[in-house]
Amino acid sequence: MKKVVVVGGGTGNFTVLSGLKHYDLDISAIVSMADDGGSTGILRDDLGVLPPGDVRQCLIALSNSSRLMRSLMSYRFENGDLGGHNFGNLLLSALEKVTGSFEKAVEEVGKILYIKGKVIPVTVHQVRLKMILEGEKILEGEKEIYLSSEIDKGYKKIYLDPDPLANPNAIAEILNADLIVLGPGGLYTSLIPNLLIDGIKEALLKSHAKKVYVVNLMNRIGQTTRYKVSNYVQEITNYLGEDCFDYILVNNQIPPEDLMEAYAKEGELVPCDLEDERIIQAKLLGDLKEVAKKDLMKRSLIRHDSKKLAHELMKIVNSL
Amino acid sequence: MKKVVVVGGGTGNFTVLSGLKHYDLDISAIVSMADDGGSTGILRDDLGVLPPGDVRQCLIALSNSSRLMRSLMSYRFENGDLGGHNFGNLLLSALEKVTGSFEKAVEEVGKILYIKGKVIPVTVHQVRLKMILEGEKILEGEKEIYLSSEIDKGYKKIYLDPDPLANPNAIAEILNADLIVLGPGGLYTSLIPNLLIDGIKEALLKSHAKKVYVVNLMNRIGQTTRYKVSNYVQEITNYLGEDCFDYILVNNQIPPEDLMEAYAKEGELVPCDLEDERIIQAKLLGDLKEVAKKDLMKRSLIRHDSKKLAHELMKIVNSL
Repeated sequence: MKKVVVVGGGTGNFTVLSGLKHYDLDISAIVSMADDGGSTGILRDDLGVLPPGDVRQCLIALSNSSRLMRSLMSYRFENGDLGGHNFGNLLLSALEKVTGSFEKAVEEVGKILYIKGKVIPVTVHQVRLKMILEGEKILEGEKEIYLSSEIDKGYKKIYLDPDPLANPNAIAEILNADLIVLGPGGLYTSLIPNLLIDGIKEALLKSHAKKVYVVNLMNRIGQTTRYKVSNYVQEITNYLGEDCFDYILVNNQIPPEDLMEAYAKEGELVPCDLEDERIIQAKLLGDLKEVAKKDLMKRSLIRHDSKKLAHELMKIVNSL
Repeated sequence: MKKVVVVGGGTGNFTVLSGLKHYDLDISAIVSMADDGGSTGILRDDLGVLPPGDVRQCLIALSNSSRLMRSLMSYRFENGDLGGHNFGNLLLSALEKVTGSFEKAVEEVGKILYIKGKVIPVTVHQVRLKMILEGEKILEGEKEIYLSSEIDKGYKKIYLDPDPLANPNAIAEILNADLIVLGPGGLYTSLIPNLLIDGIKEALLKSHAKKVYVVNLMNRIGQTTRYKVSNYVQEITNYLGEDCFDYILVNNQIPPEDLMEAYAKEGELVPCDLEDERIIQAKLLGDLKEVAKKDLMKRSLIRHDSKKLAHELMKIVNSL
């Protein structure tokens, strides 16, 4: 059975894992620990726990439990003190408190949800993602970076504070992988935070796994404005030290015009300016009707279809 | 297998169920829905859910899951918005929201915790326990009644608002029982609230089960000041319509003097003034060292020992 390791965070990981779950694979998700927004941010501040949100999404994606249990994990309280808190986050945080270990908490929730594969935090140390913009303004935390519209004017540095140790389990998974999937996901908020951790970059370069980068569908205005595929690859290469990708998976399906207009303020499609043999172009967009019905993440209606994405990734797996 | 139905709420139910769990019995816990204090009260007010606290205690008592899962269910968040909320309560409330049914939520948590037996809310309607004191002052809610020190001056009425329907599953359990155990527990806050519900009183009188009343160890000053065993039985009989008890289980073990002194402000031991053949006197106090170590409920150090209590109840079961 081939071992596929998915590296990222947030909704991107959720989509890739949801698709790959249906194949006979040994799957591991390595998850960024930089999230500090929303329910996750409050739990970090109030309880001193590690960020549960992205891990929760991966656990749900890999779950083989009942629809009820998955709905429970995604349930968000609506009123009062608990308003905005996600039940799955509370479960992970309470278990971290009871066991004294975030990794143990993730493992236990994995059992409760009968997950296929493993979910592994990239580090088990408390870190904050920070970015120094041109002009020395410092963006403090993943949420501030996510909300910033000044990043496209240039930045000096992005870093984790304090500089954490990698989770040895994450390194082991990367070294033993047959295929490593990076992305899709926020370039500065979900992907690069993993590459900033000592040991992860080195493991990615050292691993004999084939590596595929799944390029985002849309640029985010103010962050990756007018980026082309080559810009994404270049930016990641800046952190990896070398361009190690064997495959670059790019969507070439155009969304309906009315949807593009609705999203014009948020961003534009990422154009493909590379033509080398690593580029795989495919129709990867989610069915809009399906998306509207099942919407769990509510980030954007223009998103990858987990089945189409997994289908393309499996072509690579089957060629190994 | 004999069917034992335990009726009450709060810590008393927890103690009886924890002890009976270790015997080969068909156990059902029928739980008061009047609680509105602490985490439970906030959840009721903010989310409009049914009170999870007492049900949670019964589920933990009957659980055969790992120590970790039981610790998780009892875990109380310490800081921030979540401070004071109990994880098990949040689980029940989130499941009630997701399923739309408190009974379904209780059933699901029962599965997660591998409980032995069943936990059944006495009603699935929203009610508030109210008490009109002499002088017309109204105590609004179980918490106000629990905290009142004026009840021993007399009260005019205790009632549920609105007057709820009984849970048909609770009635069925009572009618099919071989033994029904009422108490121990707060007379006005845990026991009588069950008897106020149309259908429950009738089922208790109609059931061919033997009935045992487990008398509290201590009076609560301001509530049941200077009550003797006969006063407890009389007060319950006022609500049941007739004295239907076949057995009355009374502690005759005296706690160490220093502990009695420490608790003098809170209450005094309940003296046994009855001598009829229904009275079973036994040493029922918890081992103080054990209690201090295992303390989950933290209500009082003078409490029933779940093993001793179950041992006496099993003598009755084995005589049936």
